[in-house]
Amino acid sequence: MEIAPKINPPLRTLLGPGPSPVNPRVLQNLSLPVIGHLDPAFLKIMDESMAMLRELFQTKNRLALPMSGTGTAGMETCFVNLLEPGDPVLIGVNGVFGTRMVDVAQRCGAQVDTVEAEWGTALDPAQFRVAFGKKSFKVVAVVHAETSTGVLQPLDEIARLVHEHDGLLLVDTVTSLGGAPVKVDELGIDACYSCTQKCLGCPPGLSPVTFSERAIEAVRKRKTKVQSWYLDLSMIEKYWGSERVYHHTAPISMNYALHEALRVVLEEGLEASWRRHRQVHEVLIREMRKLEIEPAVTESIRAPMINAIRIPEGADDAKVRQRLYDDFNIEIGAGLGPLKGKIWRVGLMGHGARVENVELLANALKRLM
Amino acid sequence: MEIAPKINPPLRTLLGPGPSPVNPRVLQNLSLPVIGHLDPAFLKIMDESMAMLRELFQTKNRLALPMSGTGTAGMETCFVNLLEPGDPVLIGVNGVFGTRMVDVAQRCGAQVDTVEAEWGTALDPAQFRVAFGKKSFKVVAVVHAETSTGVLQPLDEIARLVHEHDGLLLVDTVTSLGGAPVKVDELGIDACYSCTQKCLGCPPGLSPVTFSERAIEAVRKRKTKVQSWYLDLSMIEKYWGSERVYHHTAPISMNYALHEALRVVLEEGLEASWRRHRQVHEVLIREMRKLEIEPAVTESIRAPMINAIRIPEGADDAKVRQRLYDDFNIEIGAGLGPLKGKIWRVGLMGHGARVENVELLANALKRLM
Repeated sequence: MEIAPKINPPLRTLLGPGPSPVNPRVLQNLSLPVIGHLDPAFLKIMDESMAMLRELFQTKNRLALPMSGTGTAGMETCFVNLLEPGDPVLIGVNGVFGTRMVDVAQRCGAQVDTVEAEWGTALDPAQFRVAFGKKSFKVVAVVHAETSTGVLQPLDEIARLVHEHDGLLLVDTVTSLGGAPVKVDELGIDACYSCTQKCLGCPPGLSPVTFSERAIEAVRKRKTKVQSWYLDLSMIEKYWGSERVYHHTAPISMNYALHEALRVVLEEGLEASWRRHRQVHEVLIREMRKLEIEPAVTESIRAPMINAIRIPEGADDAKVRQRLYDDFNIEIGAGLGPLKGKIWRVGLMGHGARVENVELLANALKRLM
Repeated sequence: MEIAPKINPPLRTLLGPGPSPVNPRVLQNLSLPVIGHLDPAFLKIMDESMAMLRELFQTKNRLALPMSGTGTAGMETCFVNLLEPGDPVLIGVNGVFGTRMVDVAQRCGAQVDTVEAEWGTALDPAQFRVAFGKKSFKVVAVVHAETSTGVLQPLDEIARLVHEHDGLLLVDTVTSLGGAPVKVDELGIDACYSCTQKCLGCPPGLSPVTFSERAIEAVRKRKTKVQSWYLDLSMIEKYWGSERVYHHTAPISMNYALHEALRVVLEEGLEASWRRHRQVHEVLIREMRKLEIEPAVTESIRAPMINAIRIPEGADDAKVRQRLYDDFNIEIGAGLGPLKGKIWRVGLMGHGARVENVELLANALKRLM
């Protein structure tokens, strides 16, 4: 056969829904020498990353670690560990990722009820109250920042309701972690998953998760084995905990990258990072308005790191995105599902949440429209 | 909190059961600029890697792609896609990974029968014949190179039997792929998984899998959904195929690394790589014998890339391995299960299968014993 040539990826400005631009310090860590997954030096890196992840999640949870897969592996980790066949679960659905949660939960054999909202709007806590009035749920799951719609879901009231009814709160923070407050302990989130390739400014490949003691207790009380061996936290916590029991070979290089990405976020400071994401988001809204491009989401629930903007009348969706690639090396995201052809999604995440990136995009769009 | 210091991994000579030493060309690819998972430039890289994986697996199978997880994710991919609750499966068990397969298959709700052999010996095809005499099996699963014991399982006779009885043959080539012949089409292997961190000389993080048309047909005929959303090949093949339907964000950097690792293997040539692994293995056996260290596995079934050697009488297992780390920066593997304290496992895999590594180890052991 003909052997493929050496790859030579283009230099893109990644302003889509992720992956986001990677800090060069993080990229450098990827090419550090590989060591074994039971090497004492690697075990130390794991401990340090767990401590930093706790800070990111604002939690004292013992269990805070990166699963060896991308964000959806983290989603599946939460569902397969918490749910057994027949368990009742309530899921908020107002975008792709809520929809995906339903599919994942059904594959666990759970009884799934949903609270729905139009894509691009937030879930209404009143509907969760109504649902709890009819039955009780072991787990209630919502997406914090819906990457498909640009909505940042307010969590306080939903969290209060779930706890009043003794449920476990499961939150998707794939896109929000590091870019907006994710206060696991303060809100009482019981299971939370994220990813590396959005506001942490790291390549995709790992999924940080954290479980509260209540959630771990629920895993311990299971009558059946977790349906996924690869994602079974009762075994994985023995590798990340003091026992160091081999489970699977951790992705060493990706763990090096995550370690540096966490250092970068914490050096800046979490609050400073949240503020920066908010400020750059505001600059984007201002710059887009100059081009008569309007935000698609109501101000109070806009996710700062993933901006849904309305495609202006007369603009050719696919053509503009293609020319952004071809002429400007800029990636932005298309709309999905009912929002296809109606919105663009502009990610300003992690290392990419910088005013100069907004300017690059604004200048490019000005020339394309 | 105190932020962890920048990591500084030691330079180890990785002669354990994996990860193996990584070729510097592969490490370099890891720090190339990240692009999006739907970027046309990335789609091209995916196509090229699929073509190269087909060559590695010696197959014309359309479906040959890296799953976004480590080797065990590949194992789970094969089982969850092929098995539905109640399906009968026959699994060969003579080490850790056969044992793990049983656990994974049971979590799929399958009816599991086993053929067993003492750890350190090969499975006996006659026992598969006996099992088929009693019932029929949808899937028969065996491990090619048992990483925990150093046995290379002869596959020909088992493969013939499975096909005579119209079963699907599932083979774990985690440790053998690239280091010994894995002829998927010639043997009629229906589902095969491997990993990146053994004979491909790439860091851990991806799991190449391939499915025959018969295996894909079995997935299509399922009555129930695959229990793992993350590992559901019916969706994943639409991202890797011409449809390009978004499933999950591929681990971009790891895919860059795999691409270069495949190039390295194919530039050397598969047969040359198999020969090199065999030759370096022979040098190891010779050098160990000079130290009165004997191989633990019968000659005809020794896996060249993972060498089980008997711990000589009087040597302190843990202490020797610790001093190899501390004084020589060499990693070797301990025995597992019934072989704990009885064997060491010396991996000579991928970029690490070189005579100079055998010499490093032999010199170090000479000084430690």
